[in-house]
Amino acid sequence: MSARGLFITVEGGEGVGKSTGIAFLEKTLQAHGVELLVTREPGGSKLGEELRRLLLAVDDEPLDPTAELLLMFAARAQHISGRIEPALAAGKWVLCDRFTDATYAYQCGGRGIDRGAVSALENLVQGTLRPDCTLLLDAPVSIGLARARMRGDLDRFELEELAFFERVRATYLELAAGSSGRFRIIDAGQPLEQVQEQLLKVCKELTACWGVRHPAP
Amino acid sequence: MSARGLFITVEGGEGVGKSTGIAFLEKTLQAHGVELLVTREPGGSKLGEELRRLLLAVDDEPLDPTAELLLMFAARAQHISGRIEPALAAGKWVLCDRFTDATYAYQCGGRGIDRGAVSALENLVQGTLRPDCTLLLDAPVSIGLARARMRGDLDRFELEELAFFERVRATYLELAAGSSGRFRIIDAGQPLEQVQEQLLKVCKELTACWGVRHPAP
Repeated sequence: MSARGLFITVEGGEGVGKSTGIAFLEKTLQAHGVELLVTREPGGSKLGEELRRLLLAVDDEPLDPTAELLLMFAARAQHISGRIEPALAAGKWVLCDRFTDATYAYQCGGRGIDRGAVSALENLVQGTLRPDCTLLLDAPVSIGLARARMRGDLDRFELEELAFFERVRATYLELAAGSSGRFRIIDAGQPLEQVQEQLLKVCKELTACWGVRHPAP
Repeated sequence: MSARGLFITVEGGEGVGKSTGIAFLEKTLQAHGVELLVTREPGGSKLGEELRRLLLAVDDEPLDPTAELLLMFAARAQHISGRIEPALAAGKWVLCDRFTDATYAYQCGGRGIDRGAVSALENLVQGTLRPDCTLLLDAPVSIGLARARMRGDLDRFELEELAFFERVRATYLELAAGSSGRFRIIDAGQPLEQVQEQLLKVCKELTACWGVRHPAP
């Protein structure tokens, strides 16, 4: 029976380089022998991916903000019970592209939804599950949006106005300040090599923890 | 500016004749000049119908009960803001096939989900909106299931065991006993003509109300 795995989340606004960062983290952690489930939100399960499609689609029927919030948590409930919890219980680490911090940043910070409602849903859906470590990739909104727009087709979130993303970023930084033990802020406005140096530092911290939990025979 | 419309819901287990009953109510109310939106849950909006498909599908990935609950309320939030509220505000009546009583009956009664969680979601999603009148079509489970099975293909809910439906029925009856002012119980185990007589009686009660709100010029 192995020790319970670590639950690591990666957060950040549009165009901060989450996908590149996650691919780098995955490669680095696996090179250290970490058994890893890499997943994402919204999504991560069959139902979750269907909901992701509904959530990101640009549609003529405007999506009610409360409906959006509940869809996010529905996908999360399915993701936790179907994939995240089984992996952690089996001793695997889980590396997840966005989690509940994103709900606080986008739905509360961005859309102005009451934090009390999100906190109640967090408790209902997650019980005591919280990330052990959260990497926040942070960059000025102008840099992130310019990168996201260079990628081409924009989803429903990427079509929001500038002030929306400023509120998202401010909320992320506020969450990080409030839980500094859990968060590691990565300056994602720097060139790729320097971003990867910062990620490597966090990986060392994390894999030291893997080493303690899984001593060589 | 017309008076706000009445919000009427029709509830009941499998095979109690809700579709036939709703078609009869629609015809009767319209014959009395009532302007009516006929809709259903889960569903009623474009997003809602997509979620309905996900909720009723028999799939190899088991649906987490909390995810199911949140999907129901996500569909409801979209349905209310997109269709129900605009219709009621314009003075139309809304006749809805299932609403939150069904969530209490199926998710709490049937699946054992905590009523406090449903009540919190009800307040979050509905604010002060509650049905003005709820017709509960009630019949012994054995009769309803035999009828539902005669219809052919069974959805994910219809594949539950007998005890599940007994709990659903008992919860419906308990809700009706607790809000006897709002509920009208229709004995749906009787032959069609007698069911329609009972529905006609409720229609008279309701259209009297329409007459008061919309006096002839």
